[in-house]
Formats: sequence, structure tokens, C-alpha cells
Amino acid sequence: TLIEQSIERPATATSRLTGLRFTITAGPTREALDPVRYLSNHSSGKMGFALAAAAAAMGADVTLISGPVQLATPAGVKRTDVISAQQMHEAALKAAVNSDIFIGCAAVADYRAAEVATSKLKKGSSEQLQLNLIKNPDIIAAVAGLTKQRPFTVGFAAETNDVLSYARKKLTSKKLDMICANDVSQPDAGFNSDQNAVTLLWQGGEQTLALQSKAALAESLITLISKQFSNKSTTSEANK
Amino acid sequence: TLIEQSIERPATATSRLTGLRFTITAGPTREALDPVRYLSNHSSGKMGFALAAAAAAMGADVTLISGPVQLATPAGVKRTDVISAQQMHEAALKAAVNSDIFIGCAAVADYRAAEVATSKLKKGSSEQLQLNLIKNPDIIAAVAGLTKQRPFTVGFAAETNDVLSYARKKLTSKKLDMICANDVSQPDAGFNSDQNAVTLLWQGGEQTLALQSKAALAESLITLISKQFSNKSTTSEANK
Repeated sequence: TLIEQSIERPATATSRLTGLRFTITAGPTREALDPVRYLSNHSSGKMGFALAAAAAAMGADVTLISGPVQLATPAGVKRTDVISAQQMHEAALKAAVNSDIFIGCAAVADYRAAEVATSKLKKGSSEQLQLNLIKNPDIIAAVAGLTKQRPFTVGFAAETNDVLSYARKKLTSKKLDMICANDVSQPDAGFNSDQNAVTLLWQGGEQTLALQSKAALAESLITLISKQFSNKSTTSEANK
Repeated sequence: TLIEQSIERPATATSRLTGLRFTITAGPTREALDPVRYLSNHSSGKMGFALAAAAAAMGADVTLISGPVQLATPAGVKRTDVISAQQMHEAALKAAVNSDIFIGCAAVADYRAAEVATSKLKKGSSEQLQLNLIKNPDIIAAVAGLTKQRPFTVGFAAETNDVLSYARKKLTSKKLDMICANDVSQPDAGFNSDQNAVTLLWQGGEQTLALQSKAALAESLITLISKQFSNKSTTSEANK
């Protein structure tokens, strides 16, 4: 098939994505409880940075929106740093409307503190504490739900159980074009590892990519995503 | 005074702390909520690692107990990595009883989740979430409260307001020998910065160390702490 050919073909054509505009989110977000404490998610940012590097190496115009990580900006990538989910939401929507393809790879915190203390909370003598949290904006659903200037939208589902089932539910409920299912219960994949294995799902198809370096995986994912985007654009044009 | 002389003297005598055993904690702790989410504190670990490096460079035998940080182990330092406050508590007490001086520089999370989910919590439709937390062990108070093999115990107080007042209260309430007060509301000091300014307090004295590199500050702190330890040991001997 065309897809398999494009995966197997080495990335010699560095300009094959020229003109294509990607926005990619990466890393965790941090939700402050007070000036010293925060709530966060495990995420090294490596997968999102690898995707940005791969797309840029293929000639795409890449905006990378990153939470707090310890990684260098890939060559040719325009980077915006954020801390919280609200900041990432704002930056992502601003960039998304000027993008062809949006990939939400960040591990965004679902909840933030209902109230953020401006000075350090004192521990007190209580053995227990109740923290009141409120839901953060759902960035990927917001992008996929855009009615104007909506980019082709790809999400990530980091799950520990029933991975494919949860991922396919998210694909539909969030109206995504594709979703990348990542089983983060595997010790040699996901999070801080330099390797990962994922299954990319879309309406009517899926493709499993075996354990490999995040750099190699990113190249395959960018190729598959671009191909699917291109198919969808062609179909849309044909239906006009 | 003797103290000022020892600070001003360059650290040419690399063996002046030979035979002295330090245990130093550094970095944040992470308290898992589920396999992907956690609660943590801001801390790069730089101050604790600088203290370990300075003590080792002066010839001391140094055990460094570190939370999750992105830092290389200083030369000559024995390092133990931990994640949670409970793990740090266990490692710290084990090392403390074989130490002359214990410095608690880690930003330990005061609370952890009352229950840790073994699979990823699903967000659900609720706009609000209550997180039930329980208090973590107070590591520095546990070390200072040892009745046998108690090391000379030095704490850190990272505060955003009434810094010296809170630090002096902690010095007394936790029965510490010294405490290092750190105003983390200053943007050019503390946390992720390579510089810091602190005030070291003890019963009957204090010394402020102006903004400088964490490496230079660490050398002054190790010198002041060792001097105070030596004074106390001499007094104890004299009183026997």
C-alpha cells in the first residue's frame, strides 16, 4: 500500500512537507497550588520534540508549544514555552488556526487548584488536607471543535489499561482525525524512555508501530499523519 | 572572628573536612496520585548538589539523597535516588545515624495522596474534584529528634514571606542545630536559579550570605556549618 511504501522509504526528500504548517504540543503542564507546590503529569517531552524535529527535517513549518521540560529546541522549530494548561490552551488555539496539522502530544493536567495561594501555604497540624480542584480546558477537543480554520487534529491517549478501547472512544468523542494510543504501563516505552511503541487510529483504520527509538517512531508518525491529511484534503476537494 | 576568617580563606586545604561524614538531601519529592499524575514542589536540586560538591571537595565523606532532578552526581559523592517523601524519609534516617552532619536541603512534599490509584484515573464529567491528602513524615524533625546516633542537624526553610521569623520558629520547634532561611519569592534566587542568597540561623546567632553563585554559597555554608558543629562537639566534650 501507499502508506507502507512511504514508511519504508528513507527520508531523503527533506522538502516533501514544504509549505505544510504543523503545531505540536509537548511535555507536561504544571498547575500551581501555591508558589512552591504544584500538580503535574509525567512527561519528558521527548515524543513531542521528536515529532517536531521529524516534521521540520521533512521541510514543514513547525510551531512547538512546550510545557516545562529539559530539552533543546530541534533545528528549524519555532518554540513557545508555557507552564500551565490554561497558558497552553491559549497558545495552542492561537497557533492552531494558522496550522494545517495540529498534534496534541502534551500531557496536559486535567485539573488545577480551584484557588492558587499567592504565599506558601503553611502545613498546620492537620494530618489530612482536602484539595479542591477544577477542570482545565480540554485543548485537543477545543482545537478539533473549531468551526473556522480547523486544522487536521491528532491527539495522544496515554493509558495504562484498555488502551485501544479508550483511544478509539476519544477519537470519536473529541472529533479527532487521528489518535495515537500509547500504553504507558510498559516500562520500556512512553514517559522518560527514549523508545516508544504506539498504535495510530483513525476512522476506518489503524496501524501499530513496534517499539523503536522516538526519533524513528516520530518520522513514521509524521509520514502517516501527513498522508492521512493529504487523503482527507483530496477527498474534501473532490466533494466540492 | 574565627568564622569570618574561615569564610575568607580560599579552599586550598582540600582535606580540612577529612573524616567528617555528611548526609545531604536535595531536590523535590514526587507524590503519585496515579501512574501519570503527581504532586510536587519546585526544586532543581542545584543548592543541595552544590553543598554535596563543596563538602566532598573539602575532603568530607558525603552521601547525597536526591529526589528526581536533572543533575550529574558531584565528584566523590555517594548518591541515592528516591522519588517520594516516604522513600526519602527511609533513606535519610538510614544514612543519618551514620553521619556527623545532616543537611536537609530537599523540598519534601508535605502531603501525599491518601490513596494512590494503580491505573490512570479517568477524568469523568465532573467540573470539580476533591483530592484527599495525608501528611508525609517530617524528615528533618525525625533526624533532629533521634535519641541515639543523632547527627548535627541543619534544615532549610524556603519561604515567601516572614522568612526569618518562620525559619527561627522552625529552628526551635524542630530542635535543629542550624537552619538556612531562603526567601524563594526573590526571582533571582532559589529554585531554578544558579544563584542564591540565604541567612543561616542558630541559637544565639545568624549570618546573612548575599546573592552569589550556589557553588560559592555552598562553600561558605559548609564552612560555617562545620565550624558550628566543631564548636558544639568541643563544648559537649568539655561538659563531660
